[in-house]
Amino acid sequence: MYRWNWIIEWGTPASAHMHGVKRFIYHGRSEFQEIQVVEYEELGKALILDGKTQSAIVDEYVYHEALVHPAMILHGNPRRVLVLGGGEGATIREVLRFKSVERVVMVDIDPVVIEVAKKYLPEWHQGSFDDERVELVIGDGLKYINEAGEKFDVIIADLADPLEAGPAYKLYVKEFYEAVKKRLNPGGVFVTQATSPSIMPYTHAVIYNTIRSVFKHAAYYHVYIKSFDSVWGFVLASDEKDPSSLDAGRIREYLKNNVIGENRFYDEIAHTHMFSVPKNVRIEIESVKDVATLDNPVFTPA
Amino acid sequence: MYRWNWIIEWGTPASAHMHGVKRFIYHGRSEFQEIQVVEYEELGKALILDGKTQSAIVDEYVYHEALVHPAMILHGNPRRVLVLGGGEGATIREVLRFKSVERVVMVDIDPVVIEVAKKYLPEWHQGSFDDERVELVIGDGLKYINEAGEKFDVIIADLADPLEAGPAYKLYVKEFYEAVKKRLNPGGVFVTQATSPSIMPYTHAVIYNTIRSVFKHAAYYHVYIKSFDSVWGFVLASDEKDPSSLDAGRIREYLKNNVIGENRFYDEIAHTHMFSVPKNVRIEIESVKDVATLDNPVFTPA
Amino acid sequence: MYRWNWIIEWGTPASAHMHGVKRFIYHGRSEFQEIQVVEYEELGKALILDGKTQSAIVDEYVYHEALVHPAMILHGNPRRVLVLGGGEGATIREVLRFKSVERVVMVDIDPVVIEVAKKYLPEWHQGSFDDERVELVIGDGLKYINEAGEKFDVIIADLADPLEAGPAYKLYVKEFYEAVKKRLNPGGVFVTQATSPSIMPYTHAVIYNTIRSVFKHAAYYHVYIKSFDSVWGFVLASDEKDPSSLDAGRIREYLKNNVIGENRFYDEIAHTHMFSVPKNVRIEIESVKDVATLDNPVFTPA
Amino acid sequence: MYRWNWIIEWGTPASAHMHGVKRFIYHGRSEFQEIQVVEYEELGKALILDGKTQSAIVDEYVYHEALVHPAMILHGNPRRVLVLGGGEGATIREVLRFKSVERVVMVDIDPVVIEVAKKYLPEWHQGSFDDERVELVIGDGLKYINEAGEKFDVIIADLADPLEAGPAYKLYVKEFYEAVKKRLNPGGVFVTQATSPSIMPYTHAVIYNTIRSVFKHAAYYHVYIKSFDSVWGFVLASDEKDPSSLDAGRIREYLKNNVIGENRFYDEIAHTHMFSVPKNVRIEIESVKDVATLDNPVFTPA
Repeated sequence: MYRWNWIIEWGTPASAHMHGVKRFIYHGRSEFQEIQVVEYEELGKALILDGKTQSAIVDEYVYHEALVHPAMILHGNPRRVLVLGGGEGATIREVLRFKSVERVVMVDIDPVVIEVAKKYLPEWHQGSFDDERVELVIGDGLKYINEAGEKFDVIIADLADPLEAGPAYKLYVKEFYEAVKKRLNPGGVFVTQATSPSIMPYTHAVIYNTIRSVFKHAAYYHVYIKSFDSVWGFVLASDEKDPSSLDAGRIREYLKNNVIGENRFYDEIAHTHMFSVPKNVRIEIESVKDVATLDNPVFTPA
Repeated sequence: MYRWNWIIEWGTPASAHMHGVKRFIYHGRSEFQEIQVVEYEELGKALILDGKTQSAIVDEYVYHEALVHPAMILHGNPRRVLVLGGGEGATIREVLRFKSVERVVMVDIDPVVIEVAKKYLPEWHQGSFDDERVELVIGDGLKYINEAGEKFDVIIADLADPLEAGPAYKLYVKEFYEAVKKRLNPGGVFVTQATSPSIMPYTHAVIYNTIRSVFKHAAYYHVYIKSFDSVWGFVLASDEKDPSSLDAGRIREYLKNNVIGENRFYDEIAHTHMFSVPKNVRIEIESVKDVATLDNPVFTPA
Repeated sequence: MYRWNWIIEWGTPASAHMHGVKRFIYHGRSEFQEIQVVEYEELGKALILDGKTQSAIVDEYVYHEALVHPAMILHGNPRRVLVLGGGEGATIREVLRFKSVERVVMVDIDPVVIEVAKKYLPEWHQGSFDDERVELVIGDGLKYINEAGEKFDVIIADLADPLEAGPAYKLYVKEFYEAVKKRLNPGGVFVTQATSPSIMPYTHAVIYNTIRSVFKHAAYYHVYIKSFDSVWGFVLASDEKDPSSLDAGRIREYLKNNVIGENRFYDEIAHTHMFSVPKNVRIEIESVKDVATLDNPVFTPA
Repeated sequence: MYRWNWIIEWGTPASAHMHGVKRFIYHGRSEFQEIQVVEYEELGKALILDGKTQSAIVDEYVYHEALVHPAMILHGNPRRVLVLGGGEGATIREVLRFKSVERVVMVDIDPVVIEVAKKYLPEWHQGSFDDERVELVIGDGLKYINEAGEKFDVIIADLADPLEAGPAYKLYVKEFYEAVKKRLNPGGVFVTQATSPSIMPYTHAVIYNTIRSVFKHAAYYHVYIKSFDSVWGFVLASDEKDPSSLDAGRIREYLKNNVIGENRFYDEIAHTHMFSVPKNVRIEIESVKDVATLDNPVFTPA
């Protein structure tokens, strides 16, 4: 007979993805969200926050390599890195693979997610929370950016989507990006997850356009993530470093010489894939002229 | 209250996509399959065969441009083109946009699909069935390839997936590709849809590997199709023309000078995107060494 | 592979019934509602209004016999009958089986439903619309009750549920029941569908309590309807005739002598079943003291 | 946004009930089955075995009172009672409410279900497992019936449905009922759950017909169970006691004088409701002449 345990992930009221669940491993609620760890029949173990699959073991590396590697390589010699969000610990795992890294500050708002990740998601963090280069700060990323005086070479925003109901939308506005810029060392690089250019094209476009209004260089890119059943977007920005300057040879050499271990997804060809955005998507993104501000933020449809 | 009309498209017994339906436009059964035309709330009008969305108005152009344009441009001067399948009429629509085309033979097994397409899918075919360069043959593509003596510059296979239950699997085996090769003029090019490298990676890989065993040059490529909630794959092959020889400048010039109208998806950047396959997908495809034959065919899981 | 065509009938946001559809027969929208005729795989042909299955061929007789027969037999000699709603034509079909009936007025607001029923639901009406005793009035039942001067022996309300969005809620309030009472001949009987005592126990109870505040005698009863996946409730009322006076012998004799043809569901045992309401349901209904009025109506949760 | 955690309970491949889940409380697998305790949003806490809701807190009392009380009252003075199955502990809870009861043997095959019930379902058993009159036997009910020499006044079969895949079907055949009969004291009464007369009418009818071939008196009855979204059936049998002899007065008196506490569902009116089976159901059940035997058992469709 048919499966009976399902997570139905709604994209909109008229579309959803059904994922069969083999085992419900953890189910709780923190101050901020509903937290679940499940074993999907097809995607394997996964973290779900408020009904949205954050990452699944089958391809979390695609998302995390895509988020971290272009920014780190564009920088060229990242020593101090700030990660906002990234509760699973896989973002700092990727950061720590870069030999030049001396210090990583990770700021996450939800201590329950961290505890759940430490206990149930060892394949994600692989002990990164115990690396002596890592400082974990439980707190609001926005507050940290505004108040902590420290500067970084690379800042990585691995945050929840800007839902109208949640606090994360304040980390997708012009004021925030200006504050981020002040926390970057000269030559610093910023990257953020930027929602799906397929499911939420307007949101994705506004995030890009807002970042572009703050940084001299900005580039959008995206890649298909099977466990999201969709493509997922990112925006990479810097005042001094131009993303279009990254060529295949430099990426290949950099990964070979300056990164510990082998990538599974990201290499110079994957880079070309992600940054070569098809015409229809380019037109859709570039037609948007809106800039998100605290007074006029952008939301993801909920 | 919530939507009530749904098509649930099962990828496997443990995963499915739910699409809300605004209007059921046509529902019938032919000798070969169950045929539906619906208006999805999000994807708009769509053709569904045996519960699988074939193409939706919101992005049918992505699929059809991706299928047709690389092969036509690789050839360089296609005059005679054979299309196997492609019942909606959008594949021949794209072919007819190439100025050099003098004759198109389209072979489709199901006359009911053609009638439904003519009546309900004018946005797809846009009158292409009435173009005097087009000859429509209702019949078995395999038989046509084996028996019709005519040769073509480009052969395009826009067929149903190789389901174990259906007859299409015979058009995904070595014997078929050898027969196709005999129907190509010197310098001829073949392209086929090749299932999803994400949902059916083994099937995709075997199709590629089988074609590679027949043609001197073969390349796999893929693109995300929103209405399939997944990436979709293709294989492009030729004995004389190397797909890797297609560079950005040549594609740009060709589209400008030799194709009527503007593409919506495909241009030299989309081409680079599709043919730059990320590392994990390359490894998965290239690790497969199986070749499909009539005695040992490859199927898509049903 | 699994079925793909589904109607998902939501009871509440946290519960729903999925019905596989074999064939979509009709799909349209009238001024009042979305209208569908489908062939369910298990329930057979069915009429669906705004996503709610109204009746299915597999057991429409249970609903229609349960609605019509107790009221008619309680009356004892019904000659003039008013049916409000009942678009499928099965309610008047049952009324017409009573030999004493001389005139039936059916008032339905939606002419499209009537047309659809005439064309696609012959198994329901079985030609009843053409019976010379029947007068069909397209119009608002509330207006008809208030303005038409004619009086009836039995009035049957076979109406849509009192949704907040729709107009039907005005036919579930004290003012309406008072108007109905004025249209009854001496000895007249009123019956109405009264939503589900399981899915909407409060609504069911208020309908009962409201009717009880208007008529001297009132009784609630219910029966399981497979195509609703639930029990369904009714309220039977009269000033002169006491429903509890109906005994098995009288029902058996009446059906034998005064009704044409054989019932499939309703007999004296089914009557006992329906009117013997289990303790928990009795307590739940009788604990409600609210009365619905135009100023303070009762709604079904939507 | 919509709910995401769902149990989809399939009745058949073309019909299912979706229940939103608030919290997954326990999820494990025993030697015999997959075991879950969840908190449904609407039905509250529930036990689910192999994807089938066994009972939910919102109405488990309907099922358990319906199963236990008619048999106990029909007997008139039950002192020794055997319960086969009934892992939640609610069946023995109801048995223990009868003042005459001196000894209850409960035989359940799955110790994990018992442990889960003890820990997570206190509202069900209410300490019954600790009652000194209760002996709990972990083992096969069929073996117990055949080998244990003890006799009982009432035997209650609260078993899983006779799935083809599982072992329970052997407890729904003539040989089993003959063995049960040998374990009854003079005047003894047997009752069994008998699947749904709505979802599985043939199975229900064969169970009745098989029991009728073994016992002098047998009666089928059923009641709507909201958490099953259906009616559920039982068969009551005895060689000496005729179920039709139970009248309202006797039930009322018996409950008042011989049972501790108040029933929530079952009283003399609920009894009449359950045993007054509507015509269509009677005809369906009584048209079946098949008898299930070990060589020719009856199964529930899976």
